[in-house]
Amino acid sequence: MHLDHAGIATDDAAGLAALYADLLDCEVVHEEEFDGMRVVFLAVGDSYLELLEPLDDEGTIARYVDGNGPGIHHLAFATDDIAGALARARDLGVELIDEEPRPGAWGHEVAFLHPRDTGGILVEFVQH
Amino acid sequence: MHLDHAGIATDDAAGLAALYADLLDCEVVHEEEFDGMRVVFLAVGDSYLELLEPLDDEGTIARYVDGNGPGIHHLAFATDDIAGALARARDLGVELIDEEPRPGAWGHEVAFLHPRDTGGILVEFVQH
Repeated sequence: MHLDHAGIATDDAAGLAALYADLLDCEVVHEEEFDGMRVVFLAVGDSYLELLEPLDDEGTIARYVDGNGPGIHHLAFATDDIAGALARARDLGVELIDEEPRPGAWGHEVAFLHPRDTGGILVEFVQH
Repeated sequence: MHLDHAGIATDDAAGLAALYADLLDCEVVHEEEFDGMRVVFLAVGDSYLELLEPLDDEGTIARYVDGNGPGIHHLAFATDDIAGALARARDLGVELIDEEPRPGAWGHEVAFLHPRDTGGILVEFVQH
């Protein structure tokens, strides 16, 4: 496992990408519209910042920004065996938001764990 | 720059370290008491999770847990030139919480930026 990315909820992905590119001397490496969001990945060393801007008022990121303001939304850990990682989480008594991996941004397989069981952190497993 | 660690505010660093060690198949690599907190670092690939448990009711982490509950507190980016990173942030119009680097946990030099200017993210620069 390694720390693949931090997911950032924002209402201005383009502006935030430009700021972080300058602040961290890093580059945008992928952009797409996915699941009602503009998604921008910046490469920072071997990890990424994933900027998530809702394109409408619905969806979890729009609700998050409404309720909490913009900021850090989740942490994603990369694995070569996402099914095994989910099975281990289940065995540890962690509630799974996604019982099975599902397609995520950038063509990756993703699955989320419930923050109630992980110290308040929304944890994502991601398999590239 | 690379993503050095995510700082996690918690009221149970030992319990959370044990959970994440199992969940992510990773290990505790450093523990100390620092600035009124129990601080535990888990190595996850080339990055870390920094668990921060307040040892009293004062301090920023105690207030954070009181107000927000446990969860992701900040993101830290490693640099070989923390003074240069701070100068660049200042030039970009980002308010600095620490005008100069100061001693942080694990003997590192650290400086924080104001989340108001960084998309709601409490950003730390860290030089090992």
